Amino acid sequence: MCLIMEAADDHVDGGVLAAPSNFSMVEDGIYRSGFPKPENFGFLATLNLRSIIYLCPEPYPEENLKFLEANNIKLFQFGIEGKTDPPTPMPKDTVLDALKVLVDVRNHPILIHCKAGKHRTGCLVGCLRKVQRWCLSSVLEEYQKNAGLKWRQRDLNFIEAFDTLSLRQCLLSIMYRYHGYGFKRKSLLHEEENVQTPKLQAAKV
Amino acid sequence: MCLIMEAADDHVDGGVLAAPSNFSMVEDGIYRSGFPKPENFGFLATLNLRSIIYLCPEPYPEENLKFLEANNIKLFQFGIEGKTDPPTPMPKDTVLDALKVLVDVRNHPILIHCKAGKHRTGCLVGCLRKVQRWCLSSVLEEYQKNAGLKWRQRDLNFIEAFDTLSLRQCLLSIMYRYHGYGFKRKSLLHEEENVQTPKLQAAKV
Repeated sequence: MCLIMEAADDHVDGGVLAAPSNFSMVEDGIYRSGFPKPENFGFLATLNLRSIIYLCPEPYPEENLKFLEANNIKLFQFGIEGKTDPPTPMPKDTVLDALKVLVDVRNHPILIHCKAGKHRTGCLVGCLRKVQRWCLSSVLEEYQKNAGLKWRQRDLNFIEAFDTLSLRQCLLSIMYRYHGYGFKRKSLLHEEENVQTPKLQAAKV
Repeated sequence: MCLIMEAADDHVDGGVLAAPSNFSMVEDGIYRSGFPKPENFGFLATLNLRSIIYLCPEPYPEENLKFLEANNIKLFQFGIEGKTDPPTPMPKDTVLDALKVLVDVRNHPILIHCKAGKHRTGCLVGCLRKVQRWCLSSVLEEYQKNAGLKWRQRDLNFIEAFDTLSLRQCLLSIMYRYHGYGFKRKSLLHEEENVQTPKLQAAKV
């Protein structure tokens, strides 16, 4: 057993894994964090990421792009402004576009991050939870846990007001197994062969 | 698509899912939370739990036992005292026993909970992260995020001092795929047929 653990250590600098700040797991194949630094690349490599959703308007750093290229990770950038004076409202159409990328299992495993992993990331995850039919108090508790003392009332208002119906209407090209996303684990399955002809009748069982 | 979502709603009271307080996902098949109440049973049912690790000495409530029985969920109770005056040290042998249950995928999906999901649960998850070779600052950040303002220095000290070697030595009956737990997703695999004769040489590749 010890042999196994030691062999594994050789693959990680210094034998320890440094998670990005504010890292946590959202769902099977969905992670969230603050901005990953080079010292987090060893940790990120263990997640076998297929994609990253990056929610800031600033260009992605060269060293992070190299890490993505080396690990064949696709970058989806949605330029949402961070703290501005006066505050910029969270752009709901952009969040909706990010959500479409997020729920598509062809992009999983996927990491969502902005700068701190609190506000922009928190809003996107909050909207995902609404799609999953989480009750609002559970959604807001999760947002606040990840934002800590920096939580913003306007983010809570945005999540509460976000209408998931438009997402549902856009999901026709993504197939679900029996009960649909959030009702059974690993339920959001993309079935490549059925993109054009969704089997809606499966839901009537 | 709408048909699918509405059909799913019929299976959840009021159409929304209430997560237990302080709920989050730790790893594939591992969840953590505060004490689940009856209004959380609908949410918990979506996780398809196989087991629960309960870290308090108080008897499990009758209604929770009924939920476990109805859903064929096994209860592992480790009676660790909560807040006492003077403070009781976290019992490392008990945490080690809980950790053995936790890393055994035969028990997954598994939910860890105590009362608030902050201190006892936080210590157990912190020890798991050490087994996974997370660096100490990542471990402590996760502990603090989940404990919020109630974080305790003595919990951080416990996690830091916890020796994972004894766990590693106890894991001979659980098999790993190539690099071992925490280095690849879904790497902690139990291979029923190999319990008696672990293939240690697999680690030498």
